[in-house]
Amino acid sequence: MQRIAIDMDEVMADTMAHYLERYNADFGRNLTVKDLHGRYVLEVIDADHRERAREYFEQEDFFANIPVMPGSQDVVRDLTKRYEVFITTAAMDVPCSFSAKYFWLQQHFPFISPSNIVFCGDKSIIAADFLIDDNIRHLRNFRGEGIIYTAPHNVYETAWRRVNNWEDVRRMFLTSGVS
Amino acid sequence: MQRIAIDMDEVMADTMAHYLERYNADFGRNLTVKDLHGRYVLEVIDADHRERAREYFEQEDFFANIPVMPGSQDVVRDLTKRYEVFITTAAMDVPCSFSAKYFWLQQHFPFISPSNIVFCGDKSIIAADFLIDDNIRHLRNFRGEGIIYTAPHNVYETAWRRVNNWEDVRRMFLTSGVS
Repeated sequence: MQRIAIDMDEVMADTMAHYLERYNADFGRNLTVKDLHGRYVLEVIDADHRERAREYFEQEDFFANIPVMPGSQDVVRDLTKRYEVFITTAAMDVPCSFSAKYFWLQQHFPFISPSNIVFCGDKSIIAADFLIDDNIRHLRNFRGEGIIYTAPHNVYETAWRRVNNWEDVRRMFLTSGVS
Repeated sequence: MQRIAIDMDEVMADTMAHYLERYNADFGRNLTVKDLHGRYVLEVIDADHRERAREYFEQEDFFANIPVMPGSQDVVRDLTKRYEVFITTAAMDVPCSFSAKYFWLQQHFPFISPSNIVFCGDKSIIAADFLIDDNIRHLRNFRGEGIIYTAPHNVYETAWRRVNNWEDVRRMFLTSGVS
């Protein structure tokens, strides 16, 4: 059975929508995902907001309250019927996020066994056939085939097969039989 | 460069010594590691203590205070000069242990980058050449070569090359050039 590793932030979890919502509320702005096209969020926000806005990621409740990416629950559940599915998240960047990320998965993806959750840093350690991730650093390090999940900061990358949303994931892995 | 994955509990951390110390203090007993020969600790302790003794693993401070396994710091540091070293611990069994395990590593093994720490469940997800582990379930699942680190519960296992202590690890990977 082939194995798919799936990233959490900006793939299963709509981290950026949650981030912008908090940023806009705190600073009276109206930034949208479209404003981030081709850039990382810290490049887009006002320079004198950056320090406080960086701290969002150091707050445990930030991770607890991230909404689920549309369609991800249904498609991940269906993937588990045909593939071994592991959730592989670079939690070591943000040690305060461990528990929140674990309980978020338990809450929104209860059909994923804890034994199939991985908190890591460098994703070259992941033994899987595919990795669905938005982060080009992780896709570069990964030893199997990387699949890039569209996020504003990666729209110009062309080195990997791309999925724009979870329906694209379904087509790639469940409908077309391309893999 | 070859890659070595190393387990924490009962390999880098003397988890069982710490466990017995707490158990003996709480129940007025004098169990030693020798009493565990060939068995798991929960098989050895009195039946009516088991529920409370199982709860030790659910206490965050239990993991924070585990002593370092003798010799592990020097040998792991030396391994990092000749190998890629990842710490791979089955933290998903005990979600309350995430932060304590992370800060324990930062405190006792500060030369290990957070990017080389992995909290996982099923160690078949680990892409490495070697895994040094005391747990036969993890050694069986691992896709590279498992090296069994002696613990009371595994003394009768013969399926893997064995190390009894960190000097054995040094000899296997740094002195003899066997690997």
